[in-house]
Amino acid sequence: MKKFAIILSGCGVFDGAEIHESTLSMLAVMMHGGVYEIFAPDIKQHHVINHITGEEMNEERNVLIESARIARGKISPMSAFNAEEFDALLIPGGFGAAKNLSDFAFKGAEAGVFIQVKDAIQEMHRIKKPIGALCISPALIALTLDNVDLTIGNDKGTIVALEALNAHHLETSHGEVVHDKEENIFTTPCYMLDANILEIAAGADNIVKAMMESLN
Amino acid sequence: MKKFAIILSGCGVFDGAEIHESTLSMLAVMMHGGVYEIFAPDIKQHHVINHITGEEMNEERNVLIESARIARGKISPMSAFNAEEFDALLIPGGFGAAKNLSDFAFKGAEAGVFIQVKDAIQEMHRIKKPIGALCISPALIALTLDNVDLTIGNDKGTIVALEALNAHHLETSHGEVVHDKEENIFTTPCYMLDANILEIAAGADNIVKAMMESLN
Repeated sequence: MKKFAIILSGCGVFDGAEIHESTLSMLAVMMHGGVYEIFAPDIKQHHVINHITGEEMNEERNVLIESARIARGKISPMSAFNAEEFDALLIPGGFGAAKNLSDFAFKGAEAGVFIQVKDAIQEMHRIKKPIGALCISPALIALTLDNVDLTIGNDKGTIVALEALNAHHLETSHGEVVHDKEENIFTTPCYMLDANILEIAAGADNIVKAMMESLN
Repeated sequence: MKKFAIILSGCGVFDGAEIHESTLSMLAVMMHGGVYEIFAPDIKQHHVINHITGEEMNEERNVLIESARIARGKISPMSAFNAEEFDALLIPGGFGAAKNLSDFAFKGAEAGVFIQVKDAIQEMHRIKKPIGALCISPALIALTLDNVDLTIGNDKGTIVALEALNAHHLETSHGEVVHDKEENIFTTPCYMLDANILEIAAGADNIVKAMMESLN
């Protein structure tokens, strides 16, 4: 049974992990016969957004504690992550990837990645295990590894930032997966496109299926 | 195209709507060719639970604003709900159904249902449109309507409370749906059983499929 580590970045598209992408990634892993464990960094969220108005709320929340909502409490801090224990790493999207796991939302190509997440990506890559990233999370790959083929869909501004990081971007539509065979990196655009939940289910299913095939 | 209204009760199993049940209900509606709109009451959550420790946090959150995380901002207050506009009503579970939409978690058979949710159930029932309830949400049906066949799985204490409300409980396992044909009520246990996310997907799919069949 292939064991996936899933990294979450909060709970809610505008300040955390995108909920549908996270849930449907978990479902896809089990549908393809795998199991998963969930991780998130034990750090303060960049901010808290009212998901109706889009405005910032005068609150503080913790990324690990909020991610636990999606994980139903079964979650570990990133500090407990050990690449040797897993067959694959999967990172759903949401602004949390670009605001909490990194500051890509604010600094683009000048951004940094939270060290424990960067270490996890580097270590899985070093031991040649597959890494999958949905939506905006491929930015974490481009910020960590060099010269990777990837996709975030078709958003021009984001593509410019990724290419500035020496990533090679391929435009994709709903459910399509880019697989960089040499680097063993899988990416799919999900809600980086104007998508519905059926299309997110297809994207999550396709990326996990492709990762499973590479493992078998 | 059949139009479902989905009522959420927050964002997270222990103090709000169960995230997997909510997401997979939305997915199931679209998979079966329908569309949905999401509603939640604009009220304070009963409390905020740290989903790792299970302890109460010294915070206040609003049910509508937190539900908007699952809805990606596309949500309306319950006050805007009009039964005439919908073909069906669907209520995912999570403790939010028993703590925010009602006080069933605290008062059992003596509980009340938040008036706008009670009105929505009564009005859909009056005009003979199907109502589906997952997990603990069938308690809202038992608290609102009389003499309904329903299921919450096999939890003895909850069954006693439901029977005290004059509901007729049928034990079920993963993915099974109880359909009270006379009252047009559909229920399935989901996370009221010790379930995994595959079983939740099956439950959401089966209840929506049964509701769609009753509409066609």
